[in-house]
Amino acid sequence: MPGNEVVILRIGHRPERDQRVTTHVGLTARALGAQGMFLATPDKGVVQSIRDVADRWGGDFFCLDNVKWRSCIRDWKAQGGTVVHLTMYGLNLPDVIDDVKAHGKILVIVGAEKVPGEIYGLADYNIAVTAQPHSEISSLALFLDHFFSGQEFRNEFPGAHIRIIHSRAGKRTEEM
Amino acid sequence: MPGNEVVILRIGHRPERDQRVTTHVGLTARALGAQGMFLATPDKGVVQSIRDVADRWGGDFFCLDNVKWRSCIRDWKAQGGTVVHLTMYGLNLPDVIDDVKAHGKILVIVGAEKVPGEIYGLADYNIAVTAQPHSEISSLALFLDHFFSGQEFRNEFPGAHIRIIHSRAGKRTEEM
Repeated sequence: MPGNEVVILRIGHRPERDQRVTTHVGLTARALGAQGMFLATPDKGVVQSIRDVADRWGGDFFCLDNVKWRSCIRDWKAQGGTVVHLTMYGLNLPDVIDDVKAHGKILVIVGAEKVPGEIYGLADYNIAVTAQPHSEISSLALFLDHFFSGQEFRNEFPGAHIRIIHSRAGKRTEEM
Repeated sequence: MPGNEVVILRIGHRPERDQRVTTHVGLTARALGAQGMFLATPDKGVVQSIRDVADRWGGDFFCLDNVKWRSCIRDWKAQGGTVVHLTMYGLNLPDVIDDVKAHGKILVIVGAEKVPGEIYGLADYNIAVTAQPHSEISSLALFLDHFFSGQEFRNEFPGAHIRIIHSRAGKRTEEM
């Protein structure tokens, strides 16, 4: 998305149970216009799954594991970036999204079940997507769609080896 | 959501690997204004997880497992309902959502990895959320948010035993 930089920081990931959900978080981030994902746990399996999709489907989404979350947040802020933490306890998305849009460089923290309390204080914005329990995947999707105002539905992914041709029924793809 | 009825039909669920993702599908549906979910596989574990959330957090979301998908679709259509199938091969969401909004009673088919080809023909709308691979959870979230035009962020869930009070930082809840 020109002029905006959004990167995900996934914390609390447990390789033994969160691989699929974290992969969905990364793919959602990529499909909806984020530039990359930092994973605050070592997990080469997740990194490889996301890189495989990015290689085949285009774009230059990055995924790095074993990132230290405290220094990641500190460095992001030192570079003038803004930190958003998605949590069901935060302010409701429609009430804050216009404020957030005034910032161009956003780190979105996406936690698994338990998040260190410190994160709430480090974040510039704690944002809830409704006040109901659902999924960090749906929360991230709605945050990105509202942040990019729906423009991300038209994103291009240069260098793809495969592309879908939208169809009324059936499956049409083009190999490049 | 007054005047609209949206129910999910989850197909292709495999209890041995999809429990968490299907639970996220159901909770996303509930949080974002759908009335219930039919699960086309027997899986009491998923049903119980979703019912536990609904009991505690309010509203009257239903979840039924072991539903036969062909008769579910046929009955929905016989009652004048519209069938939407979320698939990365379909028409792009922003291009069709206004048409879909003209209908009040929507069955949203959410598949796991493989979906029977027949579904494409049975659906009134095959809808893609971008043309990139990501997650059925994010696809459903974006479909519901666009269908309900963001009004679902203000939904009430009567009969809740717990409620979140949106906060700038920290966790505030109210027990009822």
